[in-house]
Amino acid sequence: MKEDEELFDDVVKLIREHIFEQNVEKIRHNIEYDKLKKEFEFATPSTPISNDLIIKNIEKYLNYSVKTNQPGFLQSLWGGSHISAILGELLIASTNTSMYTFDTAPVATVIEKSIISKMIEMIGWEEGEGTFTSGGSNGNLLGLMCARNYTFPEYSTKGNMGKQFQIFISKESHYSIETAAKIIGIGTENIIEINCDKDGKMQPQHLEKQILESLNSSKIPFCVVATAGTTVRGCFDPIDEIADVCEKYDIWFHLDAAWGGAALFSKETRGLLQGINRTNSICWDPHKFMGLPLICSTFLINNPEQLEVVSSCVKNRSYLFHGEDTNFDLGKISLACGRRADVIKLWLSWLSMGTEGWAKRVEYCIELAKYLENLIIQHPFLELMSSREFTNICFRWKPEEINDLTEINNLNINLRQKLISNGNFMVSSAQLNDIQILRPVIAHPTIEKTTLDSLIIEIENIIEKLTKTSN
Amino acid sequence: MKEDEELFDDVVKLIREHIFEQNVEKIRHNIEYDKLKKEFEFATPSTPISNDLIIKNIEKYLNYSVKTNQPGFLQSLWGGSHISAILGELLIASTNTSMYTFDTAPVATVIEKSIISKMIEMIGWEEGEGTFTSGGSNGNLLGLMCARNYTFPEYSTKGNMGKQFQIFISKESHYSIETAAKIIGIGTENIIEINCDKDGKMQPQHLEKQILESLNSSKIPFCVVATAGTTVRGCFDPIDEIADVCEKYDIWFHLDAAWGGAALFSKETRGLLQGINRTNSICWDPHKFMGLPLICSTFLINNPEQLEVVSSCVKNRSYLFHGEDTNFDLGKISLACGRRADVIKLWLSWLSMGTEGWAKRVEYCIELAKYLENLIIQHPFLELMSSREFTNICFRWKPEEINDLTEINNLNINLRQKLISNGNFMVSSAQLNDIQILRPVIAHPTIEKTTLDSLIIEIENIIEKLTKTSN
Repeated sequence: MKEDEELFDDVVKLIREHIFEQNVEKIRHNIEYDKLKKEFEFATPSTPISNDLIIKNIEKYLNYSVKTNQPGFLQSLWGGSHISAILGELLIASTNTSMYTFDTAPVATVIEKSIISKMIEMIGWEEGEGTFTSGGSNGNLLGLMCARNYTFPEYSTKGNMGKQFQIFISKESHYSIETAAKIIGIGTENIIEINCDKDGKMQPQHLEKQILESLNSSKIPFCVVATAGTTVRGCFDPIDEIADVCEKYDIWFHLDAAWGGAALFSKETRGLLQGINRTNSICWDPHKFMGLPLICSTFLINNPEQLEVVSSCVKNRSYLFHGEDTNFDLGKISLACGRRADVIKLWLSWLSMGTEGWAKRVEYCIELAKYLENLIIQHPFLELMSSREFTNICFRWKPEEINDLTEINNLNINLRQKLISNGNFMVSSAQLNDIQILRPVIAHPTIEKTTLDSLIIEIENIIEKLTKTSN
Repeated sequence: MKEDEELFDDVVKLIREHIFEQNVEKIRHNIEYDKLKKEFEFATPSTPISNDLIIKNIEKYLNYSVKTNQPGFLQSLWGGSHISAILGELLIASTNTSMYTFDTAPVATVIEKSIISKMIEMIGWEEGEGTFTSGGSNGNLLGLMCARNYTFPEYSTKGNMGKQFQIFISKESHYSIETAAKIIGIGTENIIEINCDKDGKMQPQHLEKQILESLNSSKIPFCVVATAGTTVRGCFDPIDEIADVCEKYDIWFHLDAAWGGAALFSKETRGLLQGINRTNSICWDPHKFMGLPLICSTFLINNPEQLEVVSSCVKNRSYLFHGEDTNFDLGKISLACGRRADVIKLWLSWLSMGTEGWAKRVEYCIELAKYLENLIIQHPFLELMSSREFTNICFRWKPEEINDLTEINNLNINLRQKLISNGNFMVSSAQLNDIQILRPVIAHPTIEKTTLDSLIIEIENIIEKLTKTSN
């Protein structure tokens, strides 16, 4: 027992230093898989190793891990966890419980229901229900399942009965929709991709045309998925206009707002989600814009019954649901059985941020994104590749004298590689159509204007070197 | 920043006390939903609350939470997290990363691959692959998806094409298999339940009979699911005999070893899993028997290709997978996109337990289960209701003078309610056929023989009171 307490104190001390460390030397070490493998060779020893050696392993882990809370981490749609959320994780782990029943998770049940209600109120639905999921992919899967059940309730007992169900997604939607469509077994050929405009937004006219085509060939259009904050460009599909089409043909409308849901917090950005109250289900990840450590993800629905039906089972679950208070047993509206209390970190964060704290976070990041956008626009050899709507900035390096696309693409791939290997910044690359771009994202408040100035300076230095080498 | 550091120190202190507290007053407060709701009324304040108030909220949370690490917690197939695992969670949160790419999670990728390899070696497959999932339900879903793809590869592109796929599960399997079957859209009517013997084990003869019936009616039997450690009885299906049937008809064999996988650690219990190397896929949850905080769950497969195919997408994922080192990008073999580094807590636990530490944990719990089994068998008015095979003990109170089943069932429901409301023990109730039972489970090492003695004494006291009241 005493050894455990010592281990606790030593590890907490180490992690505390890591959390509050400023200006780290490198946010990522440029070390290859094989070398790293050697460093962590003894992952599964036969006999226990000493606490001292455990500490040494944790030190090594901290050293080689990517410093996702540092300002230079601009790679992902998440980063910069705040302290109350990290402490929330420790609280979750140390009270380790499962969300399936009120019996086992009394307080977390109360808090989960309360936070879900608040999110539904923000969306503007008259009634609704929701659950915490294992991530945006899972939330999108739930959306498709509810849609299927709404359109064809027999599916859950009979299977698909030879029908061809079709789903309508934007060309720029997240790949998890395709994954979900594969899981539920409709087949990728029945995923209809809707064209986007030049900014990456789904075109409602094309959507309607495709739905009509589907109906005319006696297929069953059962779900439209729009995106609020696409992964690459961060653009928002026109929700209101898509809702018009869905209502006209009575098709379930699922919104993937994993990234952009947080825009609801600020009156500056709420307009991007105009019409959100007309959707049927929504996936919204607090672990993205809201600074929660992974995973903290919600699925919300305006028709509680559908969620209950897709989650319900014929099978005996008497060992779990005990008859008393089962109204509050959240396992009945979840695809999971054991489920951790992710809500607790969101709760502690909400207490320490307040609703207005999230608004400020969003507004601050938007301000920085505008700043970076301007740096790119004004730059002689950097080119903005898509209109900025949220905090994703899509750009590339375009040397004046080069016009061959492959060549330009390769230069940008090299640019990113050098950037990453320098270890000061992490920025994602992506493709927009066939064009290779860099895509920094402003997702957390440790980023500052000076961070973005330094990014541009570092890019300029790399470009200078790359240009010299090739001459 | 200083405020953050103070919050960190204060919260860690509080949680430290909670973790190392012995002999808590009550493992669960008997408080109703509405009252608890009032206690946690302000979950989503508009403006930040002070650190002092956050601390007060955490104190309240700790007070009302179920003390799942205390010996009296005998309710679930998990409990008693060890300290290195809890610290692992803190490490995961403070280095917050996503497992999708080697780029973003270099060390965790190396460690995940290493631990998956070790588990495959323990199973005895010649080759294999695996991933950490969001829980046993998700692992079972993956098993069904791989089975479907193996039997009918066109499914992923064409959908089910009007075919009737059938899945074979034991009557006592976990409800997540039914959920998974519903998700993938085969319809609950195509779930064929196989009879069990008197101890709850699937009968291979009945399985073969049902498969033949399915084939004769031109349906497609595509997956058999066996259970290693059923939820209620903790019994193990005869894996070797089921493998014979699966091989004979070339049907995918998925094993739900979420609970019983840990039996592989000890030579005393390994025999329960005889034939495990002949399965095609396995779900095994270290968050159950191995003392990891929820969620730490694995899906393992002997045919890596199937896992890759079900997880792969046509859609552009260029923003994620960057071309270099993509062999090590674990997002390619997962249904999730963002995924937390659950493996890290397993790694730290493995370092501190050693493989032999897990063996000891299993053996210790088995010894205690035998002890409790004997207490029940020798008891004048308690009745063992199923042979004990693992650490689940199924029993009921059977008053000599009462023979009406409904009456006996109600007595046992009352018994459990009183037991829970006393706050010293949590024990699950369940139904075996129509019989109401109590089902304590030995899943963690803070339980001792004296804990079990006290449980029996407390039950005797409750029974005495219940008997007096009814007389």
